[in-house]
Amino acid sequence: MTVGVVLVGAGRAGMVHARNLRAGVAGARLAGIADPSPRALAAAAAELGDVHTFDDPLAAVAADGVDAVVVASPTFTHADVAVAALAAGRFVLCEKPLAATLDDADRVVAAERASDATLLMGFMRRFDAGFLRVAERIAAGDIGEPLLVKSTGRGPGMPPEWAWDTTRSGGLVAEVNSHDLDTVRWLSGQEPRRVFAAGRAAKRPDVAERHPGFVDLVTVTLELSGGGIGLVDGACPADYGYDARVEVYGSEGVLFAGDARQATALLVRSDGAHTDPVRSWRDLFADAYRAELRHLVDVVRGDGQPRTDVLDGVRALEAVVAANRSLERGTPVALDEVRR
Amino acid sequence: MTVGVVLVGAGRAGMVHARNLRAGVAGARLAGIADPSPRALAAAAAELGDVHTFDDPLAAVAADGVDAVVVASPTFTHADVAVAALAAGRFVLCEKPLAATLDDADRVVAAERASDATLLMGFMRRFDAGFLRVAERIAAGDIGEPLLVKSTGRGPGMPPEWAWDTTRSGGLVAEVNSHDLDTVRWLSGQEPRRVFAAGRAAKRPDVAERHPGFVDLVTVTLELSGGGIGLVDGACPADYGYDARVEVYGSEGVLFAGDARQATALLVRSDGAHTDPVRSWRDLFADAYRAELRHLVDVVRGDGQPRTDVLDGVRALEAVVAANRSLERGTPVALDEVRR
Amino acid sequence: MTVGVVLVGAGRAGMVHARNLRAGVAGARLAGIADPSPRALAAAAAELGDVHTFDDPLAAVAADGVDAVVVASPTFTHADVAVAALAAGRFVLCEKPLAATLDDADRVVAAERASDATLLMGFMRRFDAGFLRVAERIAAGDIGEPLLVKSTGRGPGMPPEWAWDTTRSGGLVAEVNSHDLDTVRWLSGQEPRRVFAAGRAAKRPDVAERHPGFVDLVTVTLELSGGGIGLVDGACPADYGYDARVEVYGSEGVLFAGDARQATALLVRSDGAHTDPVRSWRDLFADAYRAELRHLVDVVRGDGQPRTDVLDGVRALEAVVAANRSLERGTPVALDEVRR
Amino acid sequence: MTVGVVLVGAGRAGMVHARNLRAGVAGARLAGIADPSPRALAAAAAELGDVHTFDDPLAAVAADGVDAVVVASPTFTHADVAVAALAAGRFVLCEKPLAATLDDADRVVAAERASDATLLMGFMRRFDAGFLRVAERIAAGDIGEPLLVKSTGRGPGMPPEWAWDTTRSGGLVAEVNSHDLDTVRWLSGQEPRRVFAAGRAAKRPDVAERHPGFVDLVTVTLELSGGGIGLVDGACPADYGYDARVEVYGSEGVLFAGDARQATALLVRSDGAHTDPVRSWRDLFADAYRAELRHLVDVVRGDGQPRTDVLDGVRALEAVVAANRSLERGTPVALDEVRR
Repeated sequence: MTVGVVLVGAGRAGMVHARNLRAGVAGARLAGIADPSPRALAAAAAELGDVHTFDDPLAAVAADGVDAVVVASPTFTHADVAVAALAAGRFVLCEKPLAATLDDADRVVAAERASDATLLMGFMRRFDAGFLRVAERIAAGDIGEPLLVKSTGRGPGMPPEWAWDTTRSGGLVAEVNSHDLDTVRWLSGQEPRRVFAAGRAAKRPDVAERHPGFVDLVTVTLELSGGGIGLVDGACPADYGYDARVEVYGSEGVLFAGDARQATALLVRSDGAHTDPVRSWRDLFADAYRAELRHLVDVVRGDGQPRTDVLDGVRALEAVVAANRSLERGTPVALDEVRR
Repeated sequence: MTVGVVLVGAGRAGMVHARNLRAGVAGARLAGIADPSPRALAAAAAELGDVHTFDDPLAAVAADGVDAVVVASPTFTHADVAVAALAAGRFVLCEKPLAATLDDADRVVAAERASDATLLMGFMRRFDAGFLRVAERIAAGDIGEPLLVKSTGRGPGMPPEWAWDTTRSGGLVAEVNSHDLDTVRWLSGQEPRRVFAAGRAAKRPDVAERHPGFVDLVTVTLELSGGGIGLVDGACPADYGYDARVEVYGSEGVLFAGDARQATALLVRSDGAHTDPVRSWRDLFADAYRAELRHLVDVVRGDGQPRTDVLDGVRALEAVVAANRSLERGTPVALDEVRR
Repeated sequence: MTVGVVLVGAGRAGMVHARNLRAGVAGARLAGIADPSPRALAAAAAELGDVHTFDDPLAAVAADGVDAVVVASPTFTHADVAVAALAAGRFVLCEKPLAATLDDADRVVAAERASDATLLMGFMRRFDAGFLRVAERIAAGDIGEPLLVKSTGRGPGMPPEWAWDTTRSGGLVAEVNSHDLDTVRWLSGQEPRRVFAAGRAAKRPDVAERHPGFVDLVTVTLELSGGGIGLVDGACPADYGYDARVEVYGSEGVLFAGDARQATALLVRSDGAHTDPVRSWRDLFADAYRAELRHLVDVVRGDGQPRTDVLDGVRALEAVVAANRSLERGTPVALDEVRR
Repeated sequence: MTVGVVLVGAGRAGMVHARNLRAGVAGARLAGIADPSPRALAAAAAELGDVHTFDDPLAAVAADGVDAVVVASPTFTHADVAVAALAAGRFVLCEKPLAATLDDADRVVAAERASDATLLMGFMRRFDAGFLRVAERIAAGDIGEPLLVKSTGRGPGMPPEWAWDTTRSGGLVAEVNSHDLDTVRWLSGQEPRRVFAAGRAAKRPDVAERHPGFVDLVTVTLELSGGGIGLVDGACPADYGYDARVEVYGSEGVLFAGDARQATALLVRSDGAHTDPVRSWRDLFADAYRAELRHLVDVVRGDGQPRTDVLDGVRALEAVVAANRSLERGTPVALDEVRR
């Protein structure tokens, strides 16, 4: 069976998946791309060549020959697309965050429960060789009990305006650091119980004037269910490049993955020793994105267990909401409170 | 003029300075070593060879031929020794923290104001090539405005029992992370305004039973006067070695110093690629400790300005007190409150 | 146009290409796999699934629907397969070395000249991000004039017996260090004029008894046409893993690519700081092998110039022959002599 | 007993030792500095402060209160100074190379045999933490049998004119790569039997016109007594800094020490990731030079065995002579021949 995959969202993340499908993912077929923006859709079609296009995402997910949907549209549209896809029996790979609000997220959970299909979260770090090796070493007991997970997520890009509007996305914490919140949960094996966030519109105070609550620098401390601690820091835009790193301190050692530098060529001259920075998540996680699509194919075919599920999306979003509330209040916020 | 230096405290830190003086610091002379413990004193004398010994620190600081005093005795004795030394007109190099309590610290400040001599804080990172290069690059504008300072301090050793008793020391935050709190202040050029700490007796719950408030893992978030953020994490005992690292994220780039690995030999075999961990602050900061003593000599001789002063000690201690109070309460603590 | 690619040789290198084609290379189609060994062919078919198999390589290259041939059979068969493929008008991607003898190589050159198709050499380092970045920086003048190219090639595997028989392959220099000889030519932009080789059966003296001239450790010094120097070292089997590194010293700086370590996770414990070694060329050059096949597709379609050609294969082989002759004689050998 | 050390040679290497002695080496005393150049001597005295100066090196080595002599004068003067010092019963630490000619070297050997004192060679890599760790790991069997030792020595400085005159020094191979030749012998535990060198005046053809035989780039292949291979490369001037690295490939693994980069601060910006190059042997081997002087003190006092001796100097010089002869002839040269 060749899995027909439709892409919803012809933006940056969507096109990564589209290009991978076009270049070839064993067992998968690019069944189409959907975007309500005529301009984005035309650009995608021009680049991808012969591809079925949809201007209506909800039509796309229900089209014939579609087995799976990759949701890479703006955050505030995730829930509607995912619910429609699941209702049509399509498997879903949903980019982070799962939804813009917890109510939306709960709608997706309900839709998944009512469907035979499964939703996977696009936490691509879980498919990256470095992060996977850390997880593997923790599972092997190489550092004893994990006690502290430090996760950094910074990106250079100027996200689209909606991503800065905390009423339509979860802001920096959601758009960038969802990955770090997932990393903390994944590598600690524990759930956040209470979070404290500090942040500031350090580089773009102008955006904060338009969008109250906007920050471009944030730190989040997470007290975890098993007594561990998570320490997340995020920034966007970060001038120097894309930076995804993790450090896990355990009772018998410490693990690191990620580097702000590319491991390509080193140049040494009298003015210094120089390597290239990692410029984009597209480069850093190129292999991971391919592996993620292969995993989607496997799950659709019933080969192997999903590595992430809708609850991973819900838990990360709850932490986002708690962190944003902590930013607003200046005090720690218990995860118990976020649904009140 | 050859500066006569007396060491107070024949413990681990004291012996580092004593050995350096014995090996030779230009312009300095080991004028003696003081420790009320006959056993420690005898061991020090045996190792150092022909050295003047004092069983009474307060007598030592006032002895003839003493120009400067290195205070490396237990934390709760720092203030008495420093006050006596300053009263006798001796210059002081005081190991961290400045004192066990803010009242003690204030006594030292008063003594220094009344003295012609100067007190330097033993923040040896300020003499380390890597940390200095970070400071130099920040001053040169290489990363624009520093926005976030992340500082890690972990150590393998089992400190003496008094260091775990938060009534006689400031616990982990004071004994280990004073260096990180100073690093945040130094490299950001800003003062802490509010701190939030999380921590746990993760590895030694048994010690927490004896000493309420004991933690062996801690994180401290610092909101800084200029809008920057500090993020400190500390652990002791850390099985794998001694780990002092800093990362400074700025508006135009990021800086790193420190590594848990020694930069000596790399061995690659089929079972892995192996280097040595940094085992001790004695190795990592060997050059820094020598430079610190040379700086002391310069200051005593009137050559050059002090790089640290008693207020650096006070400010770091205030942050320690605030962090410990935050640990106790579970909420952020303003620096304004610590003297109330 | 979808390019039909037939694989000749179901050994280790052949299967790398076969798996890549199976996983999906945009514009390419796995048209079949050929191997005279029934056992190898059956294993390949079992792994690859629905694939056309050929027990006769010469039949395979002429089969319908075949546009390009990847030659990954034993060295001593390269020439016959390549000549047949070119005669049938197929494009060829030939694994190194081009042939077992210069006479064979010359037959391939003649066949290519008589054909409309093109032969590319499988020097996959030319498609690796690190090696490419070195080439790019040299071209940009970052190190001034390249003066010395040092290239290391070591591999863990026990090659098949024929690869150790210098009458059927060119031994270590051909089977492993062809890549390094090409690297020296490529990055210096110069041709070898004279070579001196030293070598020894250091780990497998038993093999040297069966195969005179066998070495498992070799160094080759190359005096280059523009006054530069090449310094190659090779070893196989190398217990610790696969190691492909280059260093280019130039008049204004130095460049490095390659590392015996994988850039995945770092583990630090009291017993050391550990990363994983690179275990195989399959891992190290996974991206490069995919890029190489995409390049083959482009060349077949007439999109873009070939990055390597049959003369790159001839020049590398001439250096192999000279190095082996130098090993035999113990003196330098001029490239001019190798055809005498 | 405090060892009185006189420095012969107020040039760059001499002043490194002089400054170390002035800064303090336990058990040692700077007994004076000798240089026939009034200008160099005056500059040294001005920097070192109160120091005994000698314009006649031969008088200096025989002066009262002198126990040991550091020979850091131009190469062609080494033998006369060393012979005089040994004749006067002084211990000698001789910078490389031991002498300008083998005849001179033999005179030193004879003088040492006739003396109660000992000559140490200034091969400071043997006191460097990284190189020592490699030696230690080899001795521990971590890589099995060492089979190939690759050693790189490059330096930025423009040496004084005499160092380029191969009649007064041994040129690049002697002045820079003596260290590498010693490294090969030390880490392999084997002696060179035959060498092949390639070289060129790549950057300074103008100097080659004045000094026939001058090269600023060289490679030396050494066939070793136990079947191992040495591979040395050298360059001076190297624009980018000082670069001393070693790689030892063994039957079960590989070892590396040295790096062209300083392990201080890493700066990452959008224009690249930057560290500082190692600018000078003075920085790189600062600790090693101090350790070397402490070792001299120990040897003078009879505490511990010498780590190097006059024969290490002779063997390295024989390899220098063989390499230079190979450069001249273009063919390999047996070590047996160098005294013919």
